[in-house]
Amino acid sequence: MAELDATPRVRRRYNRDAEVLAAAINVFWRKGFAAATIQDIADEVGVLKGSLYHYVQSKEELLFRIFDESHRQASEMRREVVEMELPPIEALHLYVEKYVLWYLQNMERVSLYFSEWKRLSGDRLAEARRHRRTYDEFVSGLILDAEKAGEIPSRMDAKYATYFVLGALNGIPDWYRRDRGDTPETIAAVYADLVVATLKGSGPTR
Amino acid sequence: MAELDATPRVRRRYNRDAEVLAAAINVFWRKGFAAATIQDIADEVGVLKGSLYHYVQSKEELLFRIFDESHRQASEMRREVVEMELPPIEALHLYVEKYVLWYLQNMERVSLYFSEWKRLSGDRLAEARRHRRTYDEFVSGLILDAEKAGEIPSRMDAKYATYFVLGALNGIPDWYRRDRGDTPETIAAVYADLVVATLKGSGPTR
Repeated sequence: MAELDATPRVRRRYNRDAEVLAAAINVFWRKGFAAATIQDIADEVGVLKGSLYHYVQSKEELLFRIFDESHRQASEMRREVVEMELPPIEALHLYVEKYVLWYLQNMERVSLYFSEWKRLSGDRLAEARRHRRTYDEFVSGLILDAEKAGEIPSRMDAKYATYFVLGALNGIPDWYRRDRGDTPETIAAVYADLVVATLKGSGPTR
Repeated sequence: MAELDATPRVRRRYNRDAEVLAAAINVFWRKGFAAATIQDIADEVGVLKGSLYHYVQSKEELLFRIFDESHRQASEMRREVVEMELPPIEALHLYVEKYVLWYLQNMERVSLYFSEWKRLSGDRLAEARRHRRTYDEFVSGLILDAEKAGEIPSRMDAKYATYFVLGALNGIPDWYRRDRGDTPETIAAVYADLVVATLKGSGPTR
């Protein structure tokens, strides 16, 4: 830290991009994207609104850059799981564990992604939609593979099971508080078990 | 319909309250509460903004009245389930089935409740918070009762199971489209089965 503190100007310039993104995450999270303004974000960074336009053209560009970072990390997690070549149900367990851990550790950013991605427009909306579909299809693909492999009952309606599981995962920010309760690692492991339980469960009784 | 059409003025006055609420639901759902204005709602109803103030004092009052209707219906569903005096896991299955059906049939309104209740302030926020807690505690109470009755494994972490299930239920508007797919009744039955499967499932493997 001593070296960095000795060159505060260079450090500040170097980190400004990340600082602007972090401020945007905080502001969007607190006020919602629709109500937030570039002025709010400038206030949060502690610069004039005019200076902020050196870094971004619009509120939407900021939202997209926040998403872009999440997209890249989500792809990386999928790649890691696929490379392990596990049986589908184990792959799903591992992926959910990784994913929940990542979600808990980056909650504001990931949660913004799920609540606000529809605010994008044009090419950015198309790209976000593609990424969302990739995520949904990765989970539903593993569930279908697990069904084909006989790891879960084949009477289970895989489509609704997928929606159910994705909803449970997306609901994390509704209850998670960073300052209390179990560690992210413990919660991630419990959630992975719950997903497997849902899928292995007794299946439709009708 | 003929009688009603013969007295259009009386009918219009009589229905205006419901009409204003329905318009507010549509506008809040489409634009989000933060971005919506009283002007948008007046446009949706087809009246001048000034006339709308005969019915409501503020955007927040409208949001609260939308919630109030949901609160009353949710209490009624809980009452119906409790009165049947079923074993806890069956009560939970029945409640989830009723609840999902209600959610699908009133999706915009119920979904607004989950996404926007924090926008209320003062006494209204306190009341919405109380209602939310009642809902959460009803579900978590049934899960705990099922655990005590030995209907689900007692090693299951009931707290996270509750969050997981509530998240899955709250995620319904992310994927449900009224114009395609299975009937609300079918989906409600599948979701009730999935909840029971999650809870009966093998439990933590650690």
